[in-house]
Amino acid sequence: MVQKTKQEKVVVIYSGGMDSFTVLNRALADGYQVFAVSFHYGQRHHRELEVASEACKKLGVEHKVVDIRNINQLLAGSSLTDDIDIPDAEYATSNMTSTVVPNRNMILLSLAIGYAVSIKANKVYYGAHSGDHDIYPDCRPEFVEAMNHVSQIANYDAVSIHSPYLQQSKADILADGIKMGLDYSQTWTCYNGRDKACGRCSACRERLAAFASHGLSDPLEYEAAE
Amino acid sequence: MVQKTKQEKVVVIYSGGMDSFTVLNRALADGYQVFAVSFHYGQRHHRELEVASEACKKLGVEHKVVDIRNINQLLAGSSLTDDIDIPDAEYATSNMTSTVVPNRNMILLSLAIGYAVSIKANKVYYGAHSGDHDIYPDCRPEFVEAMNHVSQIANYDAVSIHSPYLQQSKADILADGIKMGLDYSQTWTCYNGRDKACGRCSACRERLAAFASHGLSDPLEYEAAE
Repeated sequence: MVQKTKQEKVVVIYSGGMDSFTVLNRALADGYQVFAVSFHYGQRHHRELEVASEACKKLGVEHKVVDIRNINQLLAGSSLTDDIDIPDAEYATSNMTSTVVPNRNMILLSLAIGYAVSIKANKVYYGAHSGDHDIYPDCRPEFVEAMNHVSQIANYDAVSIHSPYLQQSKADILADGIKMGLDYSQTWTCYNGRDKACGRCSACRERLAAFASHGLSDPLEYEAAE
Repeated sequence: MVQKTKQEKVVVIYSGGMDSFTVLNRALADGYQVFAVSFHYGQRHHRELEVASEACKKLGVEHKVVDIRNINQLLAGSSLTDDIDIPDAEYATSNMTSTVVPNRNMILLSLAIGYAVSIKANKVYYGAHSGDHDIYPDCRPEFVEAMNHVSQIANYDAVSIHSPYLQQSKADILADGIKMGLDYSQTWTCYNGRDKACGRCSACRERLAAFASHGLSDPLEYEAAE
């Protein structure tokens, strides 16, 4: 638990998914004034971003959505932004490497750090967790540590990267969220952007597994019962 | 001098100014296939970017210009992008801190690293030099070293940051460019975007001082003789 500091500002990178929704609420519970930022980097659909805006409105949290799709002329090869098929089936390395956007988290963190500097926040909350360590190099503790180091010295004012769930699983994150009484129907995880979550893509499966591990059912509506 | 490796690709962050023009040519002289990238982040004028495109065309170098002005909704407080007066007079800390864009170089490097990953280049050339160390934290050796560390581990493939002039002055950079026979009329340095360089802003003064230190006159046309 981070010690409460009245009125201290933090930036939260907030995608609208269940992990960063929990991180956002964790930052609020830690007593900070939260500035949430979401990035539109060419995700296949806008559901996550819409859900993110609604959740921030409900929480009374300042929220910016920044359209950075122009950077995709530099980045290529990810099924999250390109026309490659999204892998169904389980969330495992062999299937998921195609969802890696080159250097995504360094890019998003560098923008969030710039935002923190400009509003005089000295911390960025970032929802890396252990479930992604195998697949995404930029979710691993050594990456977060290295980013935290460089963000101490890149500007006149030091900014720290705080990843409250860095060594925890998605189920652990959910446990903290349940403890905080969060309503996960205000989140979106599915890689598809239809009315209801598909329940079949790897992101849905991982989410459902986290709920199942606590013997809970997901409050989100799904197209197909698992 | 870097050893030549036939066909190896590198990304060069290229603003159109004299330092990065020299870096671009240094990368070519080092034997690399160069992919130049310029960023439009809301500079007051487009002269540098236009000059950059022309120079790349002449050199036959692939050049991308990425419009990232949307990120300015996160960043504030710099006279290079805002409506604050540009400091005339000498290029010194007290005058120039207002030209600091929050976290600029981490942002630009993270994008260049993403580009490198996507085209399978393993190096990014970045023109930091010692003249900027006092003013810009993100031009200092410790920053470049920290960025180089994180860029080794952020993706499946390691990318190195190469700053050939990190410990050298602007005059030293110019000396290398003169040795390479470069034509500096193909560069733009002035903070103002008029037909001719103003000769009075701090960037012009620093540039003119570099030429003067070699007993040379700048081939660029100036509004006012110094």
